[in-house]
Amino acid sequence: MIQHPAEPDEIDLRHHGDAEVGGGLADFAVNVRAGMPPPWLAERIRASVADLAGYPDPRPARRAVARRHGRSAGEVLLTAGAAEAFVLLARVLAPRRAVVVHPQFTEPEAALRAAGHPVERVILTKDFTLDPAAVPSDADMVVVGNPTNPTSVLHPAEAVAALAAPGRTVVVDEAFMDCVPGEPESLATRLPAGVVVIRSLTKTWGLAGLRAGYVLADPHLIERLTEAQPLWAVSTPALVAVEACSTPEAVAEAEAWAVELAAERDRLAAELSARGLYVVPGARASFLCLCVPDALGIRALLRQRGYAVRRGDTFPGLGSDWLRIAVRDRPSNDALLNVLGELGI
Amino acid sequence: MIQHPAEPDEIDLRHHGDAEVGGGLADFAVNVRAGMPPPWLAERIRASVADLAGYPDPRPARRAVARRHGRSAGEVLLTAGAAEAFVLLARVLAPRRAVVVHPQFTEPEAALRAAGHPVERVILTKDFTLDPAAVPSDADMVVVGNPTNPTSVLHPAEAVAALAAPGRTVVVDEAFMDCVPGEPESLATRLPAGVVVIRSLTKTWGLAGLRAGYVLADPHLIERLTEAQPLWAVSTPALVAVEACSTPEAVAEAEAWAVELAAERDRLAAELSARGLYVVPGARASFLCLCVPDALGIRALLRQRGYAVRRGDTFPGLGSDWLRIAVRDRPSNDALLNVLGELGI
Repeated sequence: MIQHPAEPDEIDLRHHGDAEVGGGLADFAVNVRAGMPPPWLAERIRASVADLAGYPDPRPARRAVARRHGRSAGEVLLTAGAAEAFVLLARVLAPRRAVVVHPQFTEPEAALRAAGHPVERVILTKDFTLDPAAVPSDADMVVVGNPTNPTSVLHPAEAVAALAAPGRTVVVDEAFMDCVPGEPESLATRLPAGVVVIRSLTKTWGLAGLRAGYVLADPHLIERLTEAQPLWAVSTPALVAVEACSTPEAVAEAEAWAVELAAERDRLAAELSARGLYVVPGARASFLCLCVPDALGIRALLRQRGYAVRRGDTFPGLGSDWLRIAVRDRPSNDALLNVLGELGI
Repeated sequence: MIQHPAEPDEIDLRHHGDAEVGGGLADFAVNVRAGMPPPWLAERIRASVADLAGYPDPRPARRAVARRHGRSAGEVLLTAGAAEAFVLLARVLAPRRAVVVHPQFTEPEAALRAAGHPVERVILTKDFTLDPAAVPSDADMVVVGNPTNPTSVLHPAEAVAALAAPGRTVVVDEAFMDCVPGEPESLATRLPAGVVVIRSLTKTWGLAGLRAGYVLADPHLIERLTEAQPLWAVSTPALVAVEACSTPEAVAEAEAWAVELAAERDRLAAELSARGLYVVPGARASFLCLCVPDALGIRALLRQRGYAVRRGDTFPGLGSDWLRIAVRDRPSNDALLNVLGELGI
């Protein structure tokens, strides 16, 4: 289904999970791994405070990211989080016909609109499976998340790569890709022509407050994005974290977590499904997307009981019957299940 | 004098002092206060690592900045350093006729050019005194530094305010204003109509690596800049630093340093003048700008002896006979004077 919202519609694209937490609520709303960053990483970041008097030097972190994905340093741009990457791409690409595949994280569309570009929406149906043919053939920019926030669906690399076409830039938001053990569907290492991959350290390493992400793209586009980026855009502590999280040891640590996460996520999904809820199938990220009648009412009752979950109605393509729930550790998830049980779910 | 460089000329506007240091050289090239941040501030920033899992919340820092300058929170935008402020202003203002008053920090011009706007240069003469009448009357954007990098000249608030005119935005880069005890020539607190003030924590507090600055402007412009800014643009450690450095106690601490700095700067200027060098008179910032024949040759000889000073020839309006020297503590400055003496200066 294609939507052509001429103006930003009534959906608040700038609503995010961080607006739903606080006040002592148990946080199932924000997709950032709990208990992070780990002590070794926190210590590395704290130590960087000794170097704050100097301007940031992104070169070591850039090389580390390039090595981690088997790319060259010229194919890497470090950014102040994935959010900055969306703004830079919107500024530099100036698409004639931009298409955002929804439901997905709303910042790419918000950034495109803020830069003055009209945006069309392709709304996925059938369990939110990606159908490359649903994208208009003359779209010169296509944005897709993989795995997708909020549906948790992981699209096959082949389907995403099939979006590439001459004269088109395909932007793949892989902010949650390190939730997927082995990252078999990532395009970071393959990086086909015309594909831009955006990555983040925020979720897995618990660094939302640090603003650390990066773009992988062909060197010519990276140069243009660099020109549009403010000087010294990424802070020294963020650079230290990017470098530290790109080593083989750190990648292995994240992967071990992703394996554990997968088991607990699947257990939680099975529990919810057993209660008759529709949980979007094939979840592969650190959250679940579910359909429940009067989701906003349920959310309000959960808040009264001390639990924050993410409303789904601010995602184009979902509606007032949808919720997104972060997967936490087993005791926390069981506590949420108990409270849902008390609500008759 | 007005220059109309149709294209970025041969001057490398993106050359900055940080490219001149390293390799164990004594740093007189970068205008960041030595020995910073102070232990109390470093500890505050290190402590913020415990909160990195959450997304940044700029509201407390924004309120603290507003209080510090007697403004409302709606007149404040926090930015990832002054560099981000220049980029946001260049994108949002889209001037028809932008004028940059030189010599000055080159990033504002670089940001305007990167955003596709032609830039005219007004080159100050006569000890780099600001003459508002030198600015074309139909310029709809004027950028001026106060006190000015690299000349160290402090323009009277009245002269800067006189640049304001209907339909024109005057951008005042006050990144070094906290070098001036009492800040009598700052427009931050007055904020006349059409004036935008940019501030930085980088220099006085030794936080170049943290990316912390802010814009003061009318609420309508702040809203437009916010819309153009990436979400969560300023990191939690930077927000913590902004808030901590905006308290009356921190402002008093910075002022006490500024008083000490002024005495040592004036002594160094007098020493250099006594040796027959032209030092730009009326220096009020944390550096001196001087004219010396074959400055690039002197700079090279200083590097051989372990001292990095900032070349002046990458500043429009200066040339190959100019250097900028950061003012350090007395023993460091005396060591530099000795080495200059060995070079016959």
